[in-house]
Amino acid sequence: MINTLLLPELREMLAADDRAGLEDFCAAMHPARAAEFMQGLTPAETWAVLQAAEPAERVEIFEYLDEARQVEILETAAPEETSQVIANMAPDDRVDLLKLVDPAAVERLLPLVPTEERRDINRLSLYPEGTAGSLMTTNVARLSESVTVGDALKEIALQTQNHETIYYIYVVDGENHLRGLITARQLLMHLGTPDELVTDLMQRDLVTVEATDDQEAVASKVADYNFMAIPVVDHEHHLVGIITHDDVIDVLREEAEEDAYRAGAIAPLEESYLSTPIHTLSWKRGMWLSALLAASFLTVFALKSFNKTLDAVGWLALFLPLIVSCGGNSGGQSATLVITALTSGDLTIKDWWRVLRRELSMGLLLGAWLGSIAYVGALLVVDEPTAGELLVIPITLLLVVTCSTIVGGALPLIFRRLGLDPALMSNPFVAGIIDITGILIYLTVCITLLEGI
Amino acid sequence: MINTLLLPELREMLAADDRAGLEDFCAAMHPARAAEFMQGLTPAETWAVLQAAEPAERVEIFEYLDEARQVEILETAAPEETSQVIANMAPDDRVDLLKLVDPAAVERLLPLVPTEERRDINRLSLYPEGTAGSLMTTNVARLSESVTVGDALKEIALQTQNHETIYYIYVVDGENHLRGLITARQLLMHLGTPDELVTDLMQRDLVTVEATDDQEAVASKVADYNFMAIPVVDHEHHLVGIITHDDVIDVLREEAEEDAYRAGAIAPLEESYLSTPIHTLSWKRGMWLSALLAASFLTVFALKSFNKTLDAVGWLALFLPLIVSCGGNSGGQSATLVITALTSGDLTIKDWWRVLRRELSMGLLLGAWLGSIAYVGALLVVDEPTAGELLVIPITLLLVVTCSTIVGGALPLIFRRLGLDPALMSNPFVAGIIDITGILIYLTVCITLLEGI
Repeated sequence: MINTLLLPELREMLAADDRAGLEDFCAAMHPARAAEFMQGLTPAETWAVLQAAEPAERVEIFEYLDEARQVEILETAAPEETSQVIANMAPDDRVDLLKLVDPAAVERLLPLVPTEERRDINRLSLYPEGTAGSLMTTNVARLSESVTVGDALKEIALQTQNHETIYYIYVVDGENHLRGLITARQLLMHLGTPDELVTDLMQRDLVTVEATDDQEAVASKVADYNFMAIPVVDHEHHLVGIITHDDVIDVLREEAEEDAYRAGAIAPLEESYLSTPIHTLSWKRGMWLSALLAASFLTVFALKSFNKTLDAVGWLALFLPLIVSCGGNSGGQSATLVITALTSGDLTIKDWWRVLRRELSMGLLLGAWLGSIAYVGALLVVDEPTAGELLVIPITLLLVVTCSTIVGGALPLIFRRLGLDPALMSNPFVAGIIDITGILIYLTVCITLLEGI
Repeated sequence: MINTLLLPELREMLAADDRAGLEDFCAAMHPARAAEFMQGLTPAETWAVLQAAEPAERVEIFEYLDEARQVEILETAAPEETSQVIANMAPDDRVDLLKLVDPAAVERLLPLVPTEERRDINRLSLYPEGTAGSLMTTNVARLSESVTVGDALKEIALQTQNHETIYYIYVVDGENHLRGLITARQLLMHLGTPDELVTDLMQRDLVTVEATDDQEAVASKVADYNFMAIPVVDHEHHLVGIITHDDVIDVLREEAEEDAYRAGAIAPLEESYLSTPIHTLSWKRGMWLSALLAASFLTVFALKSFNKTLDAVGWLALFLPLIVSCGGNSGGQSATLVITALTSGDLTIKDWWRVLRRELSMGLLLGAWLGSIAYVGALLVVDEPTAGELLVIPITLLLVVTCSTIVGGALPLIFRRLGLDPALMSNPFVAGIIDITGILIYLTVCITLLEGI
């Protein structure tokens, strides 16, 4: 939904080249809101408005624009001007953004960015997507070990314009090894004793992450400790950056969405549902559906090989969808439980034996219960049943449910063990395996119990 | 997994009543880590260790203990001592915690908590679970409109011990109406001009939430704007509290887990997978499975009423699981896409017409594609097929997939329209409806195309 409230005013000011009015507009509100009001403009108009803003506000508002619009501006506006925005953006965000821009435009832009910032961009681009290094910002408030509280406050007041957060200030030795942490709050509390040494106040036992750590692990560490930011170090404990709470929130949202898509057997989308073109969506859905359809053909061939049994027992086919969906549902539950517990860190593969024991007990319990319900249901459906016939459905359900819970619980653990994302073990995938197992169990039980067919 | 590294030392110190040693332990590391090392102790031992800690550290470590352990300590330790912890905990956390404690223990505790804190607890308990009010903390750094930068810094240095965050400082008028916001960073930057008025520096256009707003909406606001905290106001714009970034992270994690459970047709768990008793888990799974099984019986009855057709066309039953699962998968995808877009705010019910049009096009596209694959598959399975027979499977799939995508896309919108959580529209639920539709379509197509049966 686009906020069109101020569009006419903005367009009027643009037409009249009212730079003072546009500058006021950009300065008056939170940059996120200014960006929102500019959504209805074309990228060229947006850039024209931004050029009227103060340089600092220009960068802030630019950072809140949609990614697609940011890319379009960088690809079309004059690189002499956009390179200034790049030079002042948050280091982590600009690296992610430049990855989306046409390489030819990037080549025009980068030489115009100041050397130090350009080096920073190149260094951060080396960290693969999904690692702590790709999330971190290199703008960190740092103090050396020897400073006093008074000096620290003065230094931070000077540094403060450049940093994403100054609420955690890191203390490093002469070789940039991370030594400790002091908060802006602690400094403020010691405003009265400016000669105290920062090293006497700072916290020394820090929780850190390495630049190569997985972003999901980083997010759960920050969330568990309620940190505002976490320092990123290299193998030799040099301070290389920090990851702030807002990046962690983005990771958590992104991962939750991806997991939801995977559970629904869709390749994750890069854009929103409504803005993804139909052909992209169809492709992202179609490739999974085709694979699942191919798997379904196994059930067709399995049933065909039991054609004689199907013909002999008239009511057998009636229960096919019931058996298959019951197995799929119970296996899907197990997979969901285990995947969620693995994702949140409540479970590790070392617990595999406990998981299998739990799923076995639950499978037997649930299978016995569902089998009893189905026994009553079968009484209503099968005409003049023999004792053997009545037992087919409950026994099948007991076996199918038990088997499904074990498969559903075990597969995510196996995926994790193989180094794959257990969320790839989407429910329909589990269901694909369970469908065929369920049918084989059903027909085997049938043949065993109903002799002479 | 329990960290047992320091357990022997802790137990030794407890046995020797080495209070100095225990105090050191509590002071030496981040409270979250101290809490982690104490996980292996019994609740009574944990409390004994905490009694040796400095009061401020005692509270902080206590806040990081498992909820179950916190509850047990509050129910068993002397209320004279635990009431001090309650008095100093974060206002939002203690309200949530007290809801879990045995009411008799709460009655013993509350009278020992200082009046002001007790009133705060009672006030916060009035906000229903899931609202902004239930998430917020009432400890807010406030300044009055008339203060200068110099006074503000002194006042904040005094206030700072009590507040969860001092990085956003709210400016209120004489009647506690929210007027503006200044950051600790801005104050620090103006350290050199202590006589400047805070009102001249502060930001006036604030994004706020109301205490009765839904927590999911609050979380997405904080995430969109990258806020560290958001102020909570009542209907008359009085400042009643703030919600901090760590609470938002908790909400996002909790909601993601709940959505995952719902997508997998499990009632959300309160504890982790491994610590939930088997009978609770079986119940939370069993009630859904029973409902889905009951729905599956509809497919049995539907098939029974077409018994003649099933008998007449031998290969019909072979494709039943394939048709049903193909419909379930494509409908589940649509439901996942629409639910995820509704949750993230990318979609509102006003967009229903666009959703239905998209799902119709995608259903036709995917149905035609899957139908063509299945046509080839059917050639291999059906012996000596007639022209009519060969068309049954592709036409059925085209109709089933189209129908399923529309149902899967529409149901979450209908749920949202009715004021229900669209995530309740879990995939297996969609599948339940689609199963029976798919079977009816299949048999109707069959009867229409294969005349004379």
